[in-house]
Amino acid sequence: METEERLTALRKLMNKHHFDAYIIPVTDTHLGEYVPAHWRCIAWFSGFTGSAGTIVITRDFAGLWTDSRYFLQAEEQLKNTGIELVRLKIPHSPEYIDWLKEKLKDGSTIGFDSKVVSIGLTGKLEKFLEDKNIQINTSKDLVGEIWQNRPPLPDSRIFDFDVKFSGVSREKKLENVKQLMKEEGVDYHLLTALDDIAWIFNIRANDVKYSPLAVSFALIGFDNTYLFIDKKKIPDKLKKILSDAGISLMSYKEISKALMKLGKGTRIYLSPGSTNTWLYRSIPSFCKIIEGISIPAKLKAIKNPVEIEHVKNTMVKDGVALTRFFFWLERTIGKQKITEISASKKLNDFRNQQDLYQGPSFAAIAGYREHGAIVHYEPTPDTDIELNPEGIFLLDSGGQYLDGTTDTTRSISLGNPTLEEKRDFTLVLKGTIALSLIEFPLGTRGFQIEVLARKALWGNGLNYGHGTGHGVGFFLNVHEGPQTIGTGASGNLETILQPGMILSDEPGIYREGKYGIRTENLLLIEKSRETEFGQFLKFKTLTLCYIDTKLVEKSLLLPEEKKWLNDYHNKVYDMISPYLTGEEKIWLKEKTKEIRSF
Amino acid sequence: METEERLTALRKLMNKHHFDAYIIPVTDTHLGEYVPAHWRCIAWFSGFTGSAGTIVITRDFAGLWTDSRYFLQAEEQLKNTGIELVRLKIPHSPEYIDWLKEKLKDGSTIGFDSKVVSIGLTGKLEKFLEDKNIQINTSKDLVGEIWQNRPPLPDSRIFDFDVKFSGVSREKKLENVKQLMKEEGVDYHLLTALDDIAWIFNIRANDVKYSPLAVSFALIGFDNTYLFIDKKKIPDKLKKILSDAGISLMSYKEISKALMKLGKGTRIYLSPGSTNTWLYRSIPSFCKIIEGISIPAKLKAIKNPVEIEHVKNTMVKDGVALTRFFFWLERTIGKQKITEISASKKLNDFRNQQDLYQGPSFAAIAGYREHGAIVHYEPTPDTDIELNPEGIFLLDSGGQYLDGTTDTTRSISLGNPTLEEKRDFTLVLKGTIALSLIEFPLGTRGFQIEVLARKALWGNGLNYGHGTGHGVGFFLNVHEGPQTIGTGASGNLETILQPGMILSDEPGIYREGKYGIRTENLLLIEKSRETEFGQFLKFKTLTLCYIDTKLVEKSLLLPEEKKWLNDYHNKVYDMISPYLTGEEKIWLKEKTKEIRSF
Repeated sequence: METEERLTALRKLMNKHHFDAYIIPVTDTHLGEYVPAHWRCIAWFSGFTGSAGTIVITRDFAGLWTDSRYFLQAEEQLKNTGIELVRLKIPHSPEYIDWLKEKLKDGSTIGFDSKVVSIGLTGKLEKFLEDKNIQINTSKDLVGEIWQNRPPLPDSRIFDFDVKFSGVSREKKLENVKQLMKEEGVDYHLLTALDDIAWIFNIRANDVKYSPLAVSFALIGFDNTYLFIDKKKIPDKLKKILSDAGISLMSYKEISKALMKLGKGTRIYLSPGSTNTWLYRSIPSFCKIIEGISIPAKLKAIKNPVEIEHVKNTMVKDGVALTRFFFWLERTIGKQKITEISASKKLNDFRNQQDLYQGPSFAAIAGYREHGAIVHYEPTPDTDIELNPEGIFLLDSGGQYLDGTTDTTRSISLGNPTLEEKRDFTLVLKGTIALSLIEFPLGTRGFQIEVLARKALWGNGLNYGHGTGHGVGFFLNVHEGPQTIGTGASGNLETILQPGMILSDEPGIYREGKYGIRTENLLLIEKSRETEFGQFLKFKTLTLCYIDTKLVEKSLLLPEEKKWLNDYHNKVYDMISPYLTGEEKIWLKEKTKEIRSF
Repeated sequence: METEERLTALRKLMNKHHFDAYIIPVTDTHLGEYVPAHWRCIAWFSGFTGSAGTIVITRDFAGLWTDSRYFLQAEEQLKNTGIELVRLKIPHSPEYIDWLKEKLKDGSTIGFDSKVVSIGLTGKLEKFLEDKNIQINTSKDLVGEIWQNRPPLPDSRIFDFDVKFSGVSREKKLENVKQLMKEEGVDYHLLTALDDIAWIFNIRANDVKYSPLAVSFALIGFDNTYLFIDKKKIPDKLKKILSDAGISLMSYKEISKALMKLGKGTRIYLSPGSTNTWLYRSIPSFCKIIEGISIPAKLKAIKNPVEIEHVKNTMVKDGVALTRFFFWLERTIGKQKITEISASKKLNDFRNQQDLYQGPSFAAIAGYREHGAIVHYEPTPDTDIELNPEGIFLLDSGGQYLDGTTDTTRSISLGNPTLEEKRDFTLVLKGTIALSLIEFPLGTRGFQIEVLARKALWGNGLNYGHGTGHGVGFFLNVHEGPQTIGTGASGNLETILQPGMILSDEPGIYREGKYGIRTENLLLIEKSRETEFGQFLKFKTLTLCYIDTKLVEKSLLLPEEKKWLNDYHNKVYDMISPYLTGEEKIWLKEKTKEIRSF
């Protein structure tokens, strides 16, 4: 079936159900970042494969609302589909709601599938549209009705995530969550985010690309804990382990029924951002819903000592892979053909040589020259270009290891950098350093310190359009909340920074049509001194990979910044060199040699 | 009548009205910062004269809830009154609500006067207490019923604020406000904050201490604009001027009736923070209330070119007064008795010699030695101490001039500073400088840049417990919203910083029992460069008063900080010295001499 036929079939169903408009979101039932094929409705329906977007179909119009990252790709992929590209003014904002309000007549009906839309968005739609008496019907998955050969739900094997990695048993985690549930005064906690579930039960799987998750729901009560999952996916041994921990297995589809059976007056805690409308509405109205950041999300953000020790070791392994890759790249470029995609594959090969490596933690952003200026660029066979011994190569990549998740960006010069490139690189580096050097009192929130990463850029009329720092999971999602360093919508602005949290530190500068520069390290929050003014905290840089000093304009660095860079490079060499060949060692020694004042 | 008798009389009235508790807030009908005597119910009732606090009376308990600034004062002033001091854990938080909820039985009734409580607080009370079925009766001013010889409403003469100062005519301001009302889609704008009213009508008066305000309300519609005010206070000439500008004068007490007469479907805009419950409830339920920051508040925050030129000149005058004061202080100390209060008076004398001076813009915080560590210290005859040629003297003061409002803090050493004093002073100064040097893109909010003022302190385990910057009016309130540099409750966090705004920059450090240090300048936001990354903004320092270099530990300053200080001191000398005597000039030259690197 072609997209045009699908569009016709869908409009036929809209007619049948008396829908004046139908909305297809990019999200899945668990509202996670990486969507399994089973739920990739937009990709199947329209051919558009971007990670953000919403399709809205009326009787006489069909459009895909997406942001500037995807304008070129969407134009290409939507050609001759009958679906038009609508350019979002503000990324991630539901601008189609205003459009619907303007276009639809009083008394119209809008349909969408409540299973893949958050309760927050549904509420917003209802509120916006009530003025015009527009009805919302969320009971139909029209794409599902016409989707033949739809990929099944993911069915990867679930495995026990050893406590030697997780550091805390599932029993203890459940106990901790129940303690906080008691403090919140709730009877049940509904878990819908897959990383929350993987974390609390110490299970992992491969249902989702890049993240070791199992498609499931969970309901935690004081007497019973239920895991809703396709039981076939769980080995018998693990079934017994879970059962011994007091966890009852239920079929994945039974979650809704279980919620409907909650007794009168039950107080149930859930996170509105990851709870879909269908589940939310399964909770009887005589129950009291308490909304907040999920308790496992709050707990897992603070890494335990075992996790922290593992991550430090994982950073050495990941640093070795990155170092060997950059060595190989410098030695090979100009001698054999290397492209953005082949470079990413080669880097994955190097990571694959490391112990406990499981795969990339996200699609590497390998942006050569002007591609580096596209913030979420992921090379495809259509866009892939060859690297030459000139210009800047931005490489943002990470790995999933059984003992941790990594995320590192380095921008290197493949030739002789220009003055502008050096100046930009150094201003970005000043930001990376300034943020990592800050000491701050307990109680500080991430948005308060973000300016440190931007100050040097701002002072030169430069800026970047993304946040500065996100949380990172432990063999879990590479983007993990609730902490954030930024003022945007991702993460929770009110979350205070606490010891044990891991955050990225990634300022950048993007020169359209020329190059992109970003230097990203992961930072661990540790306790610093305690004074009469309270407990202070500081960052420890976890990432171990040299920074290309060829791009550093030394005259722009303050003494304390030079000291930071020299100390960092000493540490990188000391930690990484034991795992290198002689030739690599000599090369890394040169790459990490001291920058002197002059 | 003694407080105990008042308490008995009030409880008698509570019995009569079947109130189980009665709340007396510190606020007035306009919910402003400085409360006229007519509304100082707590001071009259209990003897407590602090600026923050709430009295709650039940049948068997009477307490004053206030914050740590006032613990000592309240203990003293409440002695033998039958009213107990209740220490607030979090300043300005209504902790008495929880207490009431705990103490009162189901079905109890709480009374307070709706005319002096914001609609925001009433809503909070109702929401908190609904669980326990506690009734709220807001119709009685019980203190008013027992207050004999209550001071009348303020009756100062209103005067026309010349457009040569205000820069924009009242007609044009009304036009601008109506334009924004149109964009908001509202029919009326209710104004309750006295500075909003003084600003839009270009009137000033002396109804409120420290702020040149007239007690009044206003209602702006597209066809009619009403000023509710005691007409006796307005000279006939001004009456005609206002009438010619299309402003109808109504009696002050008629505001409520005017609101009650609004027609069905009227959309009325108001600011919930400055609207009392009584007025809010006067609006018929068939009207639609749109809440937001008042439009005059948004407009007056951005000073016009005429105001800016005046303020720059006012800063010279104020700087001259401060300079002559500090010269006098240094020459006189140890020779004649100077106390905190006499010093404040002397400073006021120097200001009084300046053209267009009207009086102080707030009660000077003159804190010698350990008194400097009390953040909102105001010397009283009981606390007043003599200044000696040793230790640190913190002086935070400001003036109201027809051509602007000032607010400056300087901390000077009266003897030989200790190493700790110098280090603390220099770390604070680094904060003042860092904030004033930042360049930032349009769209930045104040909380994003605050860390710059704290970073040097944080990096040494130090901090301060107040915000860093507040807006300042133009011959209006010294504390003016909505802009703010901080993360606290004052000001509006979402307000972006815009060219023409004036903000204070006042980090500090407070060593309990030892000394306080604060260095405060006023900053004006100006446009900086425009690049491909947008419009950038910067600060211009307005305040002109030397900084005590005796307290500067030069080794802690970066080259750019030394340059800032030297440039600033050159400017201070150039601008101020023409107005000084020969002796004062020589002295200021020495005070502003260049700091060299060594």
